[in-house]
Amino acid sequence: MPERTNMADATPIRPIPAGEVTEWTYESDVVVAGYGVAGASAAVAAATAGAEVLVLERAGGWGGAASMSGGFIYLGGGTPLQKACGFEDTADNMKAFMKAALGPGVDESKIDAYCEGSVDHYHWLTEECGVPFKMSFWGEPGWEPPGDDGLQYTGGENAAPFNATIPPAPRGHVPQMSDKRTGEQGGGYMLMKPLTDKAAELGVGAEYDMRVQALIVDTGGRVVGVQAKQYGKDVAVRARKGVVLATGSFAYNDDMLEAYAPRLIGRPAASIEEHDGRAIRMAQALGADLAHMDATEVAFFCDPQLFIRGILVNGRGQRYINEDTYPGRIGQATLIENQNQSFLVIDEQAYEEGMSRPTSSPQLRHQPKRVAESVAELEAEMGLPAGALQATVDVYNRHAANGEDPLFGKKTEWVKPIGSPVAAIDLRGMTGGFTLGGLRTSVDSEVLHVSGEPIPGLFAAGRCTSGVSAGGYASGASLGDGSFFGRRAGISAARS
Amino acid sequence: MPERTNMADATPIRPIPAGEVTEWTYESDVVVAGYGVAGASAAVAAATAGAEVLVLERAGGWGGAASMSGGFIYLGGGTPLQKACGFEDTADNMKAFMKAALGPGVDESKIDAYCEGSVDHYHWLTEECGVPFKMSFWGEPGWEPPGDDGLQYTGGENAAPFNATIPPAPRGHVPQMSDKRTGEQGGGYMLMKPLTDKAAELGVGAEYDMRVQALIVDTGGRVVGVQAKQYGKDVAVRARKGVVLATGSFAYNDDMLEAYAPRLIGRPAASIEEHDGRAIRMAQALGADLAHMDATEVAFFCDPQLFIRGILVNGRGQRYINEDTYPGRIGQATLIENQNQSFLVIDEQAYEEGMSRPTSSPQLRHQPKRVAESVAELEAEMGLPAGALQATVDVYNRHAANGEDPLFGKKTEWVKPIGSPVAAIDLRGMTGGFTLGGLRTSVDSEVLHVSGEPIPGLFAAGRCTSGVSAGGYASGASLGDGSFFGRRAGISAARS
Repeated sequence: MPERTNMADATPIRPIPAGEVTEWTYESDVVVAGYGVAGASAAVAAATAGAEVLVLERAGGWGGAASMSGGFIYLGGGTPLQKACGFEDTADNMKAFMKAALGPGVDESKIDAYCEGSVDHYHWLTEECGVPFKMSFWGEPGWEPPGDDGLQYTGGENAAPFNATIPPAPRGHVPQMSDKRTGEQGGGYMLMKPLTDKAAELGVGAEYDMRVQALIVDTGGRVVGVQAKQYGKDVAVRARKGVVLATGSFAYNDDMLEAYAPRLIGRPAASIEEHDGRAIRMAQALGADLAHMDATEVAFFCDPQLFIRGILVNGRGQRYINEDTYPGRIGQATLIENQNQSFLVIDEQAYEEGMSRPTSSPQLRHQPKRVAESVAELEAEMGLPAGALQATVDVYNRHAANGEDPLFGKKTEWVKPIGSPVAAIDLRGMTGGFTLGGLRTSVDSEVLHVSGEPIPGLFAAGRCTSGVSAGGYASGASLGDGSFFGRRAGISAARS
Repeated sequence: MPERTNMADATPIRPIPAGEVTEWTYESDVVVAGYGVAGASAAVAAATAGAEVLVLERAGGWGGAASMSGGFIYLGGGTPLQKACGFEDTADNMKAFMKAALGPGVDESKIDAYCEGSVDHYHWLTEECGVPFKMSFWGEPGWEPPGDDGLQYTGGENAAPFNATIPPAPRGHVPQMSDKRTGEQGGGYMLMKPLTDKAAELGVGAEYDMRVQALIVDTGGRVVGVQAKQYGKDVAVRARKGVVLATGSFAYNDDMLEAYAPRLIGRPAASIEEHDGRAIRMAQALGADLAHMDATEVAFFCDPQLFIRGILVNGRGQRYINEDTYPGRIGQATLIENQNQSFLVIDEQAYEEGMSRPTSSPQLRHQPKRVAESVAELEAEMGLPAGALQATVDVYNRHAANGEDPLFGKKTEWVKPIGSPVAAIDLRGMTGGFTLGGLRTSVDSEVLHVSGEPIPGLFAAGRCTSGVSAGGYASGASLGDGSFFGRRAGISAARS
């Protein structure tokens, strides 16, 4: 039997028959496991629908990975923020982009619902929950806006290959920070604070230091509660209407990573150690189905203001992507298609120009360790075969002289011949991320049994589920589908 | 609720309580689902251990995908066939190669057991079961030996990057065909015929046209039988000791492909439509764990005698792999890392030389549609940006003049400058394969619950399980782990 990591706690994961529960320590209509964005959205929606709601959170307070994130929510189809910034968008264009960029294998019904409901979701976030957006657009390269602008391209919508066929619109909506300089109230915090304030206002209860362990089921197979550990003690929590699982990804469960997403071993990022996959396994023990367990968000640890002005080459000195696309696409292409090997080749002038531009990620402004007078010299210093990098740069420069990048379609504004002196910034292994796979759920956030039928009384949302991303990614898709399908989970549970 | 394909048959997949079974139509100690290589090996091993065995097969006869395959079994560590052909091998070298080539994320305990038991497994196949091997080695490029030679390299052991650090040995063992020219008794048939003859000799029973539908469990959660459909009628089959699942991959279940391995949609190969994933789902319904559901074997539909003599370039005209490695590695690199885009660039002399060599796959000897006097002309005809393919060929030729391939490490014997006239053979989309992921099992072929504990009475082997391959592949790994862990499944079930 293989060893299991992250299972120091030996509480059984198998469903517990309700008849064996001697005492219900807590009780509510709807019980939500996890107080990140999916759990908070579920709690608000369930409470709004009239249900009594109790949230169980493993950490000492609300927030989850969401409150530490940049705060992007992927929204579109013509939101007030998009319109205020002068961008046209339609649900159909949004669907077309998401189906092209987040696959292969996307759940089309989920993307359809998500896009058709996106403007409504914007109104819910702003008007119902008080999430603030500043009506301004950030158009420079970057992982996030360096200031408090509310809108940015976060999926490569305006870059090749998508911009050739799908009218682009920026869809990364980031809540306005009250003071970004302090570093304490970033976009994610400014999403989670209003959501949890709203939940509190609606009377949602919360219990902290609660590690969910197993589902409690009645004789008919309906989920009627959760077994949890609170301060090391077993407690049973009864859910009169439904249980919502919203405990995040499995990026910190090494055993699950090894079995499902081994490329991410040793490189979890934008996730928290509470992301142990327990909720996924609790539901699997009931016969819940999974989807896209290998899919991963992959960050690329370099400032886009730099790499967009040079060329990225793999460990063989070959270009492998248009440098003006969403940096997360670059991260995935690096990790999955290029053995996690990447170098930024950039001349001095372009480097200085990039360094002079504003950025949200000064810590990703790596300095070159190798500077050379010629590409031939640089290639030798990098240990590449003679001619390999020269051939790449020659072909790039030949077309860049005309402002073109026929190989990858980088936009003219970013295409410039590489001159001298020239440097290579070593970006090998500079990726990390979180898992995108998980429980298979319906568009109404019901957890689906392998039979295809919903498991009665069980709902889920956020990164413990497989959401709108089947492999590809856009920043904001996780807070996006977590909040969108979190609401649906809350509504479904309240009606259940 | 998402639509389910391949579920025309509406028989529930949920476990059936034994108390609800009114009549046991069949009964045996060990019940094996599937009469391919894993099922046959389980049946022989269980019967040898003294158990009464009944095999349930969906098709009208034994064989499964195995009997239609080339018949490779991945064996090593110093088998009599390896020794007879003059190759040294050790279990440690075999382990090192398999862990390096079949990952990331391999089940190390499974590979250890497999390698340590490989010589014994050879003896079992030959002496116990009568599988014939001809003591001869085939050393030319090819998917399979064109004649009846017994041994071949089938994983890239003797190619970069592995040959630099791990002493190579050929490990693809193929049973001797009685008459390959008829095309009716290939290596896979010559494996399955002796195995099923041996099973019959041991008194193993078989029922055909039996579609397994659901597991039957007692009140303690032990698997005590299988519900199946035979000629459209529900029948209950009692297993006094254990059930072995061995029904093959999910390559023909579109719904599962979309959820787990979407790159394979529309391109199943080396698999049969019986590979519907039902056994995986039946066990999932009991809380069985999964592993590496995205992993796929990928065949590359071109004759190695041709492509080893040229260079393979992706859709951007870049080389992406050493052409002298195992063709299955080329298939995976093409499909997963290069958008399923590949062209063989080869000069006339090399093409003619390849065509003059023996091959097992004449149907994969594509003719070039484009022939040109120069690479510049060829590149223009292919629609590649000016200079892109020329740069690739220039760098290749520069080093090939010295018999070197510093970019990928192709062996000197296959490195030759590309001359004129030169052609491109369009190999875009020319891949296909089967799934490698499935049920998570112990080294003793127990099906593991998500708790990590074995599910009592339930065993599995073959391509409905995740075996020695976690992503990478070698020909013979499936008949190899199917037969090896099939035996263990039979033994475990007989003792259960």
